[in-house]
Amino acid sequence: MSENGVSPNIIFAEEKTGWTGYIEWEKYPEKKQLAQNILASHKFTPIPEFQFVPLPDTNPVLIGHRWKEYHEALGLKSIVDFSWKTVLKEKPDLIHLLDFPYNGETRRDQLLTEKLTPNKYHFIRNHGGVPDIDKDVYELEITGLVNQPIKISLKDLQDINKFPQEEVTVTIQCSGTRRIEQIKEYPGDGDELINAPWGEGAIGTAVYRGVSLKKVLKIACGGVKSDCKHLEFFGADTYFKKGQVYNYAVSVPWRKVRQSDEVILAWKMNGVDLPKIHGYPLRVVVTGYIGARSCKWLTRINARSDESDGPVQSKEYLYYSQQIGKQNARYSNGFSIQQMPVSSAIISPVDKQVIIHDGFITLRGWSYSGGGNWVERVEVSPDGGHVWYAVPQENMTEKHYHAWRLWTIDLPVDPEGWLEFCVRTWDSSNNTEPTFVRSAWNWDLHVTSSCHRIKIYSVNRSRPATAQRLKEIEDRGEEFSPLSKPLEWSLEGEEERFKISKRFPREPEN
Amino acid sequence: MSENGVSPNIIFAEEKTGWTGYIEWEKYPEKKQLAQNILASHKFTPIPEFQFVPLPDTNPVLIGHRWKEYHEALGLKSIVDFSWKTVLKEKPDLIHLLDFPYNGETRRDQLLTEKLTPNKYHFIRNHGGVPDIDKDVYELEITGLVNQPIKISLKDLQDINKFPQEEVTVTIQCSGTRRIEQIKEYPGDGDELINAPWGEGAIGTAVYRGVSLKKVLKIACGGVKSDCKHLEFFGADTYFKKGQVYNYAVSVPWRKVRQSDEVILAWKMNGVDLPKIHGYPLRVVVTGYIGARSCKWLTRINARSDESDGPVQSKEYLYYSQQIGKQNARYSNGFSIQQMPVSSAIISPVDKQVIIHDGFITLRGWSYSGGGNWVERVEVSPDGGHVWYAVPQENMTEKHYHAWRLWTIDLPVDPEGWLEFCVRTWDSSNNTEPTFVRSAWNWDLHVTSSCHRIKIYSVNRSRPATAQRLKEIEDRGEEFSPLSKPLEWSLEGEEERFKISKRFPREPEN
Repeated sequence: MSENGVSPNIIFAEEKTGWTGYIEWEKYPEKKQLAQNILASHKFTPIPEFQFVPLPDTNPVLIGHRWKEYHEALGLKSIVDFSWKTVLKEKPDLIHLLDFPYNGETRRDQLLTEKLTPNKYHFIRNHGGVPDIDKDVYELEITGLVNQPIKISLKDLQDINKFPQEEVTVTIQCSGTRRIEQIKEYPGDGDELINAPWGEGAIGTAVYRGVSLKKVLKIACGGVKSDCKHLEFFGADTYFKKGQVYNYAVSVPWRKVRQSDEVILAWKMNGVDLPKIHGYPLRVVVTGYIGARSCKWLTRINARSDESDGPVQSKEYLYYSQQIGKQNARYSNGFSIQQMPVSSAIISPVDKQVIIHDGFITLRGWSYSGGGNWVERVEVSPDGGHVWYAVPQENMTEKHYHAWRLWTIDLPVDPEGWLEFCVRTWDSSNNTEPTFVRSAWNWDLHVTSSCHRIKIYSVNRSRPATAQRLKEIEDRGEEFSPLSKPLEWSLEGEEERFKISKRFPREPEN
Repeated sequence: MSENGVSPNIIFAEEKTGWTGYIEWEKYPEKKQLAQNILASHKFTPIPEFQFVPLPDTNPVLIGHRWKEYHEALGLKSIVDFSWKTVLKEKPDLIHLLDFPYNGETRRDQLLTEKLTPNKYHFIRNHGGVPDIDKDVYELEITGLVNQPIKISLKDLQDINKFPQEEVTVTIQCSGTRRIEQIKEYPGDGDELINAPWGEGAIGTAVYRGVSLKKVLKIACGGVKSDCKHLEFFGADTYFKKGQVYNYAVSVPWRKVRQSDEVILAWKMNGVDLPKIHGYPLRVVVTGYIGARSCKWLTRINARSDESDGPVQSKEYLYYSQQIGKQNARYSNGFSIQQMPVSSAIISPVDKQVIIHDGFITLRGWSYSGGGNWVERVEVSPDGGHVWYAVPQENMTEKHYHAWRLWTIDLPVDPEGWLEFCVRTWDSSNNTEPTFVRSAWNWDLHVTSSCHRIKIYSVNRSRPATAQRLKEIEDRGEEFSPLSKPLEWSLEGEEERFKISKRFPREPEN
């Protein structure tokens, strides 16, 4: 056994010392071919059905059999083990939606604690294992359509005399946020692994510190060539698609990169070094785009004339129209999801909550828009979307170009019983959200940006009949909840009932 | 041990020989009081939560702990045992929603086999145990506001020289039919026992043979007194409410009874003696009313000046308005559910079914209206209720005053992906159905008469792209289903994808 516990009888070696868990695939077609042959010779656990049946009430919710087995078949089990160890250390409190590749969501009570999400509560959507990279040997390679291809150390990137540093407040959101709403109504693609059944917690906000990619390209590489249209990012994680093996790769347009400070190479998150699970020692942060483009454990940037061929870029995160599905989906009939639209969520109360109140119910939530549009207005409706109340400006956190606003509102609620609350947000381009989940359903179940809806059961204590019933429950030392548990005592005296039935008889007289 | 296996050490004896399982409570206040004391001294299993959580995938779906334990506490376990034995004998194929008191629903494939539901497939909603009554000793008592109170044997009732006999085709429906739709969206009252989570199968149609109650009252009792306004029916089953014990009792207005042949005392169902579980040897059949009024194992009819005090009549089957619930529900702020409104259901296809078709999808279902209104028109919508297609008359079974019509339609369906189908029916009073479950939600979750909606996934084989994908799946020896299982091979050739991406580039040129 070697020092890191990996058997010496390994099939695929790590090329670089100090880059534990990083197998370089993209420069080695023969390794990719061998891996493909090995995978083709194995049987793997089928993807379990999880959309047409209720989700298990466990944590982890889903088990990533296939990705684990792929790694094991290639002799890379140590990556799986290290990843889970890292989850338990860095993200013990998340809702573990999928154990490997790790997908974890922030709990509701930790989502709105402050404008910046504490690192240990920030959601994670990984596509492969977590590598363990020594920052002292770390170097970034920049190749392709640049005037000067380079390799640059982290130390050099962090040298303030070479590159000015930036700090940007950025909300990162998985394009699968709130996918559970689509699954519940209309199941779709389970993807090669499992498309995590995210709720409203696949979003988080942090201050990232690093250097602008634009400036690195200009200062270190002498700029990009005129035919450079896309910047491709490679991560150290191993990815799989249809039996083939890859390093994680995505791309963003040069036009995005050349905007000031919109694409950052970041090493700090909320004032501390990036956690391992967030891409230590260096990641990309692409503002206003889906989280998938903010490549973690960045190994190489490749300037290209077109977008990345990597499967994550070219064959996934596609936005299909409503009539595209298993029967006709192709890679070219969906469009690539890059910028995120305006969206929002009610985080408190929660769906199906019973609320005893005195005519007002407090709602709290988040609102975000991508593409550099900031949040202008948040509106909530107490009646499914007929009447809307605007959240007062003083009840919203400050504006950012690339970050959410948290908000709170005391909503006047007179009626009792089941009500449907929903929220919609307007951004600085006057965009707002589609009305129903159905309005924007799509086969890969991405971008659930429709008005977030919850049902709550309203008990208005300011009404005499309700106050009386609540008092009777209290006097008997009982609880109102659970709602579905019947009261065990008579709901009305016989005399009272008889009196009313005489006053308002059942049938007409004639 | 006695002959029927009941211990001689019994607390509550059966008063009448040949009426096994019938404890007469209503004439014995001291027995009722003793039973109440016994119940008060016991702890019973709490009602399980079943509305805020997924239903178990078992048969029986729910276990009726409390009703069983009530019976056991009173020394009546033999009733529980006989009831279940009867279920297994007479209703082996139903979906057993609740084992005791027995609630069982017809399976979909057996629901529309013919206009008349075969007895063994007809749904059952019992409120207590099944008694075992010897028809040769059976007698019916008629008391109260009649000119001549009587006791009459079954043999006399069946004497064609004394009473003309009737055969009527009648649909009986539980007022809880399709309750599951309300539960899924908005949980409500679990009731003293468990309000069964019925689907679309708590409805059935049979030809009942018997005598008109109107004629029995006239011929045998010399008519009713002028202040008779309600006829109360007592069953042999034991019922419980808030710790007290009763015989099952309900009532219907005299005005209903005096309509020709609308209230029948029936002993035959579809040409054979009533099955034990359906009320053998004699039951009431109240046409156009909720099933609960069609009292089984009829022991007594009581002519009254007002409706029954029995809890089933006066404290249950109440129809509340939307803002009434646990916080304010009383018996007098709901109205009693007697006549059933127009309603319908799509039985085939089923919700979330994937359908491969060539531009038409066949829908089948039932439509019914109570109160003597017959079904005039059935309409289905392929788009959630915007466009409606009328079912052709030739595709509907014949009209009845008191029975459903079954129907079928080939619905033109062009679009692919998830669609929402719904049905609405118009009756002979031009009534039709509320649009959404929410439109008619009520705390006791009764009368789910809103348009029945299902989601289906449409795969239109008449489209070339779909035909090609289906062929590829077939050529590989694979199956299209399950929908949520991804295809394991590439959805598009690299060359094709590249060509299309050149023709329609990702970003604008300028």
